[in-house]
Parts: sequence; structure tokens; C-alpha cells
Amino acid sequence: MRSKTYTPMIFRIFTGINARVLFFLLLLGVGAIYYIGASTSPILVFVFSLCTISFFFSIYLTKWVLAKDEGPPEMVEISDAIRDGAEGFFRTQYGAISKMAILLSLVILSIYLFRSTTPQQESSGLGRSASAFITVGSFLLGAFCSGIAGYVGMWVSVRANVRVSSAARRSAREALQIAVRAGGFSAIIVVGMAVIGVAILYATFYVWLGVDSPGSMKVTDLPLLLVGYGFGASFVALFAQLGGGIYTKAADVGADLVGKVEHGIPEDDPRNPAVIADLVGDNVGDCAARGADLFESIAAEIISAMILGGTMARRCKVEDPTGFILFPLVIHSFDLVVSSLGILSIRGTRESGTKIGVWDPMAVLQKGYSITILFAVLTFGLSTRWLLYTEQAPSAWLNFALCGLVGIITAYIFVWITKYYTDYKHEPVRVLALSSATGHATNIIAGVSLGLESTALPVIVISVAILSAFWLGHSSGLLDESGNPAGGLFGTAVATMGMLSTAAYILTMDMFGPIADNAGGIVEMSEQPESVREITDVLDAVGNTTKATTKGFAIGSAALASFLLFSAYMDEVASFAHIPFKQVDIAIPEVFVGGLLGSMLIFLFSAWSCSAVGRTAQEVVNEVRRQFIERPGIMEYKEKPDYGRCVAIVASASLREMIKPGALAIISPIVIGLLFRLLGHFTDHPLLGAKVVASMLMFATVTGILMALFFNTAGGAWDNAKKYIETGALGGKGSDCHKAAVTGDTVGDPFKDTAGPSIHVLIKMLATITLVMAPVFL
Amino acid sequence: MRSKTYTPMIFRIFTGINARVLFFLLLLGVGAIYYIGASTSPILVFVFSLCTISFFFSIYLTKWVLAKDEGPPEMVEISDAIRDGAEGFFRTQYGAISKMAILLSLVILSIYLFRSTTPQQESSGLGRSASAFITVGSFLLGAFCSGIAGYVGMWVSVRANVRVSSAARRSAREALQIAVRAGGFSAIIVVGMAVIGVAILYATFYVWLGVDSPGSMKVTDLPLLLVGYGFGASFVALFAQLGGGIYTKAADVGADLVGKVEHGIPEDDPRNPAVIADLVGDNVGDCAARGADLFESIAAEIISAMILGGTMARRCKVEDPTGFILFPLVIHSFDLVVSSLGILSIRGTRESGTKIGVWDPMAVLQKGYSITILFAVLTFGLSTRWLLYTEQAPSAWLNFALCGLVGIITAYIFVWITKYYTDYKHEPVRVLALSSATGHATNIIAGVSLGLESTALPVIVISVAILSAFWLGHSSGLLDESGNPAGGLFGTAVATMGMLSTAAYILTMDMFGPIADNAGGIVEMSEQPESVREITDVLDAVGNTTKATTKGFAIGSAALASFLLFSAYMDEVASFAHIPFKQVDIAIPEVFVGGLLGSMLIFLFSAWSCSAVGRTAQEVVNEVRRQFIERPGIMEYKEKPDYGRCVAIVASASLREMIKPGALAIISPIVIGLLFRLLGHFTDHPLLGAKVVASMLMFATVTGILMALFFNTAGGAWDNAKKYIETGALGGKGSDCHKAAVTGDTVGDPFKDTAGPSIHVLIKMLATITLVMAPVFL
Repeated sequence: MRSKTYTPMIFRIFTGINARVLFFLLLLGVGAIYYIGASTSPILVFVFSLCTISFFFSIYLTKWVLAKDEGPPEMVEISDAIRDGAEGFFRTQYGAISKMAILLSLVILSIYLFRSTTPQQESSGLGRSASAFITVGSFLLGAFCSGIAGYVGMWVSVRANVRVSSAARRSAREALQIAVRAGGFSAIIVVGMAVIGVAILYATFYVWLGVDSPGSMKVTDLPLLLVGYGFGASFVALFAQLGGGIYTKAADVGADLVGKVEHGIPEDDPRNPAVIADLVGDNVGDCAARGADLFESIAAEIISAMILGGTMARRCKVEDPTGFILFPLVIHSFDLVVSSLGILSIRGTRESGTKIGVWDPMAVLQKGYSITILFAVLTFGLSTRWLLYTEQAPSAWLNFALCGLVGIITAYIFVWITKYYTDYKHEPVRVLALSSATGHATNIIAGVSLGLESTALPVIVISVAILSAFWLGHSSGLLDESGNPAGGLFGTAVATMGMLSTAAYILTMDMFGPIADNAGGIVEMSEQPESVREITDVLDAVGNTTKATTKGFAIGSAALASFLLFSAYMDEVASFAHIPFKQVDIAIPEVFVGGLLGSMLIFLFSAWSCSAVGRTAQEVVNEVRRQFIERPGIMEYKEKPDYGRCVAIVASASLREMIKPGALAIISPIVIGLLFRLLGHFTDHPLLGAKVVASMLMFATVTGILMALFFNTAGGAWDNAKKYIETGALGGKGSDCHKAAVTGDTVGDPFKDTAGPSIHVLIKMLATITLVMAPVFL
Repeated sequence: MRSKTYTPMIFRIFTGINARVLFFLLLLGVGAIYYIGASTSPILVFVFSLCTISFFFSIYLTKWVLAKDEGPPEMVEISDAIRDGAEGFFRTQYGAISKMAILLSLVILSIYLFRSTTPQQESSGLGRSASAFITVGSFLLGAFCSGIAGYVGMWVSVRANVRVSSAARRSAREALQIAVRAGGFSAIIVVGMAVIGVAILYATFYVWLGVDSPGSMKVTDLPLLLVGYGFGASFVALFAQLGGGIYTKAADVGADLVGKVEHGIPEDDPRNPAVIADLVGDNVGDCAARGADLFESIAAEIISAMILGGTMARRCKVEDPTGFILFPLVIHSFDLVVSSLGILSIRGTRESGTKIGVWDPMAVLQKGYSITILFAVLTFGLSTRWLLYTEQAPSAWLNFALCGLVGIITAYIFVWITKYYTDYKHEPVRVLALSSATGHATNIIAGVSLGLESTALPVIVISVAILSAFWLGHSSGLLDESGNPAGGLFGTAVATMGMLSTAAYILTMDMFGPIADNAGGIVEMSEQPESVREITDVLDAVGNTTKATTKGFAIGSAALASFLLFSAYMDEVASFAHIPFKQVDIAIPEVFVGGLLGSMLIFLFSAWSCSAVGRTAQEVVNEVRRQFIERPGIMEYKEKPDYGRCVAIVASASLREMIKPGALAIISPIVIGLLFRLLGHFTDHPLLGAKVVASMLMFATVTGILMALFFNTAGGAWDNAKKYIETGALGGKGSDCHKAAVTGDTVGDPFKDTAGPSIHVLIKMLATITLVMAPVFL
């Protein structure tokens, strides 16, 4: 019997309404959006149009995916169990997150009601209460959209998994296509929602506040009102990633430690009581969390780039600043289009070579990526010429186009470096595998060394990217009132956009991973023939590679985005404090201490997220051991294990465990800011709180980038070293060498799927929380 | 037959000279030193006197230790093998280091011959060549003294070990006393040489340059000439620590992996071919390296505090700045005295309770520490009143005395925190031990989390210490010309001195560890009765605890010292560049990138030092496996293993492996400084190189502190979790839980004894190299 699927209340309300009424309401909403867009700028109408088209395209994709068959009943049964688990966890997790979000919004509200307003805001008549409700409203909208992004990611993956496994019985290509299109659907929704959310807020505020009319707010100050949206997005993303990350790895580690290591049964074996929990984890940890992660990356990047664009336009007295401000929205609308082209380029039928072995799915995905990049470069160039051309500096757009190219190249190199360090075709993983021959300990030492070493090249690349983009922007010819070059920071912003200009395709490849993984699990559990298993195995392996490379991409863009957010923060503080805030001087002891605390925050956060997985995994281990002992029939397929209990244990434990690191991340910047504000007050040091927070932020970002790179790469390398040995190298499966490699793989699990990705989100969350809380630190 | 012991050439020359001539020369030298001391300041005469007395005391200690018997011939034989190995490695290692030091001194010489001089130096007639030879001479003296410090540490430990094991046959107390006095001997030599080296250089330059006479250099600028000494010390310390650290842990890991894990024979079993290499490692890795480490800590701290004292005295126009400049020398001379008292308080005979079980050696050592601290507080207070009293700010000395107290308390808390996280009496290690019950992987995950978490409290303590000491100095009443408080940085300097004011006693406790460890090894190998083994076991366990706590102390003082060196660097740059250099603004992209690179440097350095151990250990594993296979008689005690081959393999491998991380540490700051100097030249950004290096330095310091804490604590905790299980908990020795704990312990070896301590030295080396290379970055 099919279990009732969970639908969030908002959807239930929608589906409860009469279809005609709904259509009418929808039309009305879309009309209103277009109307305010048109009253703001024709550029926004263009953005809305691209988004609308992409939404229709995504609906086409999902209809196409859902039209595929779900396979035999045993597959459906397993898929239903996974779906129930995932939806149940999602419900409780997002329930908890909503409550926290509402609580936090009340805190923000009261802070803003007592804050000081900027002179511009005062002159435009934007009072305290208006700015308070604007910030809180944006926060809640950001949080809501982020939730939807997560939900959509999970919604499609729990439906696509069984269709992929069913298709795998027929053709590898078809299976690949379903997984890609399902991933593409949620990628487009995620990116599109980030764009349209910001665009709607911008247009609404523009119309509402009568921006640019005499006596009211300047358009260049408008982006500062959007910071709440970014914070809302990153707030939800942080808990989504933490909860999901703990869930997926605790289940995985727990299942492996008893199943694989103690009882020697294969992965995803139906006899393992934790197997369903493990498969649920893929959906809630990888799909939902990575969706929320990239959603907030893009939202934060758009907002900070808009702030920097606005500031630059104001300082340089650009005649029409709208182009500079809306540029990021256009770039990401084009992202939707070019990524859709990339997704469509992956076809299910092809004249020859559709058999695994002859045909390499990775090459297919890579080809799609090349197509996407090609179009992205093209549209990027066009957009810069269209929006960033100003008579004041006629060649500036060209410099900015080059900045974009810097970003795109950086993304490409990042992906390549990640591959080099995590793919067993290359030296590092082979050396790691070899070190397993001398035991568990040398494997761990070698993996840790590999992870630490792998931080060097990305840091050098990101350094070159920051400096060259800054320099390109700096020498763009845009000068401020006193004749100084002023385009440097905006140059880095454009490079960040370049890096994220293919985000939807990257996210598609990322989502592909857990769907393929799940499909493999369903095939294994429903005991399909070896040939089917072979197909899903290959897809799963490809998914592992794309997952690892996406992480490289995510941390690279997080590094750039944080640098932007940091600059936006300084602009924001200057605007609140009515005095220039241009320096963060770490030779001041308090500021240095702020940095020390910021770096420490990353270490403590990592510690708590790793130990959360360890603790939860131990609970799973004990439960699985208990079931094996109490129900000896399980091992002989005579008894069915109690999957539900493991799911319940993991779910409640991960909800409990996500609170500590999450609270640390949110509370500590506020506490540090307030403490040093107080200290500054007594020692007569103006802006001390704001400066210390700035330094905390930068040190945390630097340490965060390094730690995330370390965690992601070490984890990925351990995983693939084990896979390499499983191909038969160094004694193959079951040898002592393999056992040592399994230890490494298990250690790497929380590194690469909990701590690492959580740090991506953390550093952006720290940046957005300081943006929103800036008034508190003054 | 007794093998010929190795004596460095310098000693051979001395011992070759006729005793009367030698005595006469010595008297002449001492007379000359006292003469120039007296011509400089009476304070120096006082410093020389305390040092002379302490040297006599140390000679007494060593005579006392050497007068003890060496036990039966089988002990002597083993001890000789250890001594030969240690001395052989020392010879080749320091041979290589000397060559590098001479090469580097030529580089420095040529840089200084082409550098610009400060206006003060020009006006005092200190030409380029003079300042070049001063710097290079100080560098070579620093390097030489550091080498001697390392040699002395090893010299005494390879002689004391056998005497301790012999004494253990009679009485635990006597064994303890011998180990403590042997450690005390080298601790006093190490600290004394740091003090007297700086003092002699200072006095020589003072007399030579005719300081403070009209038309010549000001005394407040004199300390800047000493930076070469600090760099020489840290240069040698870095390679001593790297080479020794790799040696000791590669031998240890290699011996354990085959002996303990594969063949199940106990630690230090004579059948293990790598056992002598392991015991040699204790001497070269722990004794020699830690001696060089603390030597350079103290030297660097003295010099930077002298620079800061001089700068402050100049800015505040203090009438007689000598007190402020020479204060650190006095504090550390008193350190010799108070630590001697502490060492003497540990006696070999006592009326009752001399039996193990009734009597706790840790309590004895703690009592000695309490006595030392008590006297340190007393002498610290006296010294501040004596030297830091100025009529300009009559209560300033009191503030500085409180700064010293802050330092002493910080040291105490650091030691306590380290104990909390690494001692199995407390929660964290017990939780770690428990996590071993679910396997190797959960043990590693828990250990990593524990290590990461353990960084939080020390960082908070060090932050509070920096801020409160700065604030105490700031409000001391010392004002500069324009009436601003100017004592802040000197306050932190005084706190650092406070922290290091019991360094000699701390070092004694640290040296105690490897001596006891070695004694245990000799007892085990010479197959003494169980009761003797019991005594050395207890001493060994106490040694482990003192070793761990010393590391906490070392990293805390390194953090404070680096902060000072960094400030001294800014003073130095300002003095070279003839323009103020007061800010390191990380909002400038290049400066931010410098920070990013600095943090990355720590990660890469850690990676390379860990992988060096891993690789060398694999060589040892292969050799030991080969011997066991080729000589099956070893296991039945029928054949003697070839200890020498293992010693040779480890020695040559660690010499090879120390080059890569060492070169990275020395070359990268220079390259980064030059690169950004060039970039600054082209982008018209003055001082860019110096600023980027400053930021690199601070980020590296922060990341270094965190990483070192992580490595040290995780390693210590794993070690003790294993020891806890060996007491019988959770299944005890031989259980699966114990096996998992052994994996953790082995992973922790390179963490706590190679990477961690090397980072201590690295962050100070980075600070001193930038001090010396400052002219290159301008």
C-alpha cells in the first residue's frame, strides 16, 4: 500500500483551492510582479521573463521525469520507505528551523526598532519601524525561499530515484538522463528562486519607497535593504546542512561499521537495519542541503554585488547606476538559460555506444558542462556590454568582462584541482591507497597530510583570482570624485558572478550524485540482476566525482562571496555610523584578538559537527548490533529488520545535534560584537565592535576556506582510495589493506559531508549575520 | 667494549688544550665579559653574576648525576648503543644545519650590504658593512648557541638514562631525582645561554659603537641590532625540531606497527629491530629539539621585549631607558635562580612513603613547580620595582608587575587546560576511549573532534591575557610626546616574560620525560625484574603528562612571543622605511591575500611534516618486516636483530625529509615579501611588501596556534585514551577496543611530536626571519 505523502501546508492550501481560482490568483500575482518590475526598470522585466521561461522549462522537466515508470512493486515499496523517511525528517527539521527563524526575526525586529537609521534613510523618510519591517520581512522571505529550495530538491530526488533504478533495467543512458533532468529541475528552481526573490524585493521596495524621486531614497542605497534576504537564506541553509549532514553521515557510518566491517555484508544490503536511514540521508543531506547551500551562495552573492555596484556607482557618480546594480540578476537569469541548454544537450538515445564500458557517463556530463560554459562566456560578455557600459569609462565593460572570465577560469581550475587530489587516476590517491598497506594508522596519517596539502593550490588560485579581478576593476577607468580608481571591489564581485555563472548546471551535476546513489540502493535492495546493478554502480561512481568537484566549486565561490560580503559589511557600517570605515587594522590588539576568536570559531564548529556525527553513529551502531542479536533471522533473510527504528533514531539525534554548532555560529558573532562594542565604549575606542567583528569575519573566512578544503579533499580522497583498492589493487576487497582503507573512508564521511559543507555555509552565514546585525555593533 | 663517544670539534679543541692554559683563557674571557658588562650597565654585571652562579650550579648537577653508577654491563651496552645512535644522528644533522646556516648567512650578508640604513644608524656612523657583519655575526652566534643548547640536552640525557634505570633497581625516589637533576642541568644551560648570549652581544655592541656618546647611536635603538641572534636561534631550532621530530616518531610508529600491532610483542621489546632507533629518537627528538625550541623562545622573547622596551622608552622620553631595555635579561636570570630552587626542592631521600603506590612522583614535581612559581612572583615584583620605576609615571611598575602576574597565571591555566583535555582522569579522554569501542574510525573521528574542540579555551585565555596585559600597560601612566598612553605593547611583553619566568623549571620537567622513557626502555631491554619495570613505568607515565603540559606552555608563550615579534617587526620596518608603519589593513585585497597565504603556509607545512613521518615510518616497517622474515630466530631470542640498520634508515630518511618543510618555511616569507614588493612598485603602493608580510605573519600565527593546539592535544589524548584502556577499562589490553585505541595513538604520534612542536618553532621562525629580512621587503 502506498503511504500518504507529506505536503507542506502552503502547498496543501494551494491544492485545496479551486483550480480556476488558483489560476486566476497566479495570473494576478504574476501580473503584479511584472507591473512593479516594469515600473522599476526594463531590465527587471527582462529578468522576470527569463525566470518565467525557466520555470516553465522546469515544469516540463519534472513532468517528463514523473511520466517515467516506477518499476516493479518491490522497488516502489523501498522508494516509498525512503520517501516517508525523508519527508518525515524534512517536516520535523524544517518545523524546528521555522520556530528558530521566527524567534530570530523577533530579535531582529526589536534590534531594528531601537537602531539608528542612515542619513539617507532619514532624509527619505524611511523611519525605524519601516526599516525594521523591511529587514524582518526580507529575512523571513529569504528563509522561506531557502526552505522551498530544500524541499524541492528533496521532493524530486525521492521521486526520481526509483524511476532511475527502473530505467536502469532498460538502458544506462535513459537512467542517466532521468537523473540529470531531475537534478536539473531542482537546480533551476533553486537558482531561479534566488534571482526572482531578490528581484521582487528590489522592485517592491523601489516602488513602495518611491526611490529616486526627489526627497526620497537613492537607488544606490536600495540594495542595503536586501541584506535580510541573504541572512534568512543562510540561516536556513546552515541548519539544513548541519541537520542533513549529520543525518546522512551518521546513518552511513553506523550502517557501515556494523554491516560492512563487523558482518561483512555489502553496502545497501537489505539485511542491514540502517540501510533505509542511509538512503534517506542521501536525500536530506545531499539534495536538500546542497540546494539550500547554493541557494544562499547565489542570494548572498547577488545582494553583496548589488551593494558594491551601488556604492561604486554612487562614488563614481555614474549617470544611470541601474545597470551596475541589476547586473548580478541578469547574469544569473542567463545562468538559467545556459544551464538549461547544457541539461538539454544530454540525451537519452543515441545511435551507438549506449552500453556501459563503451560509453562514459562522465564524458557526457562534461560535454554538457562545456556547452554551458561556452554559452555562459557569450552571455556574460553581452551582459557586461549591455549593462556596464558607461560613457565615463568607455572600456570599463571590457575590463569587467575579463573579470567574469577570471571567475569562470577559476571555477574550472578549482574543479580540476579537486579532481587531481580526489580521483584515483592521479598520484595523490594512489599514494594514499599504498599507505593503507602498512595499516589503519598510516592510512589516516597519509589522508590527513593529503588533505592539508591540498589546500595550497586552491589558495594560490583564489589569491590570484582576487588580485587580478581587483586589478582589472581598479584599472577599468572608473574614478571617484577625487579621481581615485574605484572599480576594484566591483571587479572581484564580477569575478564571483563569473564563477557562479554556471551554478545551475553545476548544481544539476551535484544533485545527480545522490539520485544515482539512491537508485543504486533501490536496485541492490530489490535484488535486481547484476547487469542492472552494474549500470547504477557506474552512475554512482560518476556521481561521487561530480559531488566532490561541486564542493571545490562551492568553497571557491564561498571564498569570493565572503570577500564581497565583507566589503559590503564595511560599506554598511560606514553608512550607519556616518563615519568612514575603510580599515581593519590587525595591529590593534583587540582586532587581532577578534581574528584569533574568528579562526577558533571555525575549529570549534568543525569539532562539534564531527563529534555530532560520531555520537549519532554510535547510537546507530548500538541499535543495529541490538537488532542483529535480538533477531538472528535477519542475517538469513528470514526476518525483516526494523528500518523505521534506525530512521527515527538518526532523525531525532541529528535534530538534537544540529542545535549546538548552529547556535554557536549564530550567537558568537553577536556576543563578540557586543562585548567589544562595550569595551570600545569604556576605552574610548569608536567602532571597536564593528572592527573586531570585521576581523573575526576575515580570519574565520580564511580559516574556513582552508578547513573546508581540508575536510572535503581528505574525505574524497579516502573514499576513492578505498574504491581504488576495490578495483583489485593492493590485494583488493577483503584484504587488510582494504580494511585500513575502509577506516579512512569512514573517517572521511563526516569530514566531507558534514563538517566541510557546513563550513561553506557557515562562512557565508557569518558574513550575512554581521551585515544584518551591523547596527548592534556600533 | 665501550664505544668511543662523539664530541663536537669545539669541545675537542677545548679538551685538547692544557688545563692551565684553558683555565687562564676562561678567566680572561670571563674577565673581558665582566669588563664590557661593567662599562655598559651595572644591571648587566648583575645578570652576568646570576648566570655565572647558575653555570656553577649546573656543573654541580651534572657532576652529581655522573657520579651515579651505570648499573650492570647489559644496561651499559644498551645505553651505549643509544648514545652512539643519538650522537651519530646529531653529528650528521647539525653538520647539515651548519652548512645551511653558513649559506644563509652569506645571503643575509649580501642583502645587508645592499640595504638602506636607518637615519639613526647613519648619524651614528654605523655603515652598511658594519650593520651587515653585526647581523650576520649575531645570526651565527645565535645558531651556534642553539646548537650547543641542543647538544647539551642530548649529551646529558644519553648519560642520565642508564643511571636512572640503574637507580630504579634501588629506589624510585632516587631515580626521579637523577632524572630531574639531569633535566635541570640542560634546562639551566639552555636558559642561561639564551640570556648570556644576548647580554654579551648587547654589551659588545654598546662598547664597540660607543652608544649614547654624543653623535653616535642611541641605546634605545641598540636592541634592533640583536635580531640576527633570534633568527639564528630559530633557524637551528626549526631544523632540529623537524629532523628530531621526524626521527623520533618515524622510529616509534614503525616499531609499533610491526612489533605491537602485527606481532603482539610489547613496547621496547629487545626483539624489535627498531627499538634502539625508537630510544635514540627520544633523545634527539624530545631532548635536543625541545632544548633548541625553548632556547629560541626565550631568545626571541628577550630581543623583542628589548626592542619594544627601547621604543617605548624613546617615545615616552624616559630619562634612563636602560632599565626598560635590560628588564627581560634580569627576569630570565632570576628564572635560573628560582628554577634551581625548585629543582633542589626535589630530594632523593625522605623519611616515609618512598614506595610507589604510596608516593606520587607527579605531586613531587608539582610541589617543586609551586615553589618555583612562588619565588618567581616574588623576584618578578622586585625586578619591576627596581628597573621599571620612573618618576614620570610612579605607579607604572605596579601595572607592569600585574602584567607579569597575568603571564604567570596564563601559563598556569594553559597547563591546566592541557591536563584537562589529555589526562584520562577527566571526561574528554574517557569519551575518546569509549568511542574506540565502536572501532578504529569512530576513535579517529572522536580524537579529531577532541583536538579541534580543545583549541577554544586556550584561545579565549590567550585573548584575555593579551587584552588585559595590553590594557594594564596602556593605563600605566606612561605617555608619549603627544600625551597618548604608550605602554600597551610593553605590557604584553611583560606578560610574556611572566609566562616564561619559570621556563627553566618547565623545561626541566619536560626533559625529565624522555630520560624516564629511555630508562624504561633500558630496563625492559636488559630484562630487569618486574618491580624495577614498575618504577620506570610510573616515572614514564608522569613524564608523558609533563611533556604534554610543557607543549601547552610552549604554544602559549609562542603565541605571546609572536605577537611581540610582530610589533617589533613593525617598529623595525618603520625605522628602515623612515615612514610610520602602524597599520596592517586587511581590507586591502593584497594584504588579505597575504593572510590567506600565511594560513595556507601552516597547513602545507603541517602536511609535509606529517607525511614525512608517514613515509619514513613505512621504510621502517618494511625493514622490520624484512628482518623478521629473513631472521626467524629473532622472535625466539635466538638471533639478535640488526638495530643499526634501522637507526641508519631512520637517520638518513629524517635528514632528507626535514629539508622540504624547512625550506618552505624559510623561502616562502621571502618570496611573498619580494613578490608583493614588486607588485607594490608597479601599482604605486608603498610598503606593500612589508604590509603583506605582516599580514602573512599574523594569519600564520593565528592558524599556527590553532593547529599546534589541535595536533598536540589530539595526540596527547589518543595516547592517554590507549593508556586508560590498558589500565583494564573497556576490555583492556588486546581487546578490539584497545586495537582501535592503538590506531589513534599511532596517528597521534606525528601530530603531537612532529607537526605540533614544529609549528611552535615555525611561527617564531617566521617572525624572526621577517625581522631580519625586513629591508628586503621595502
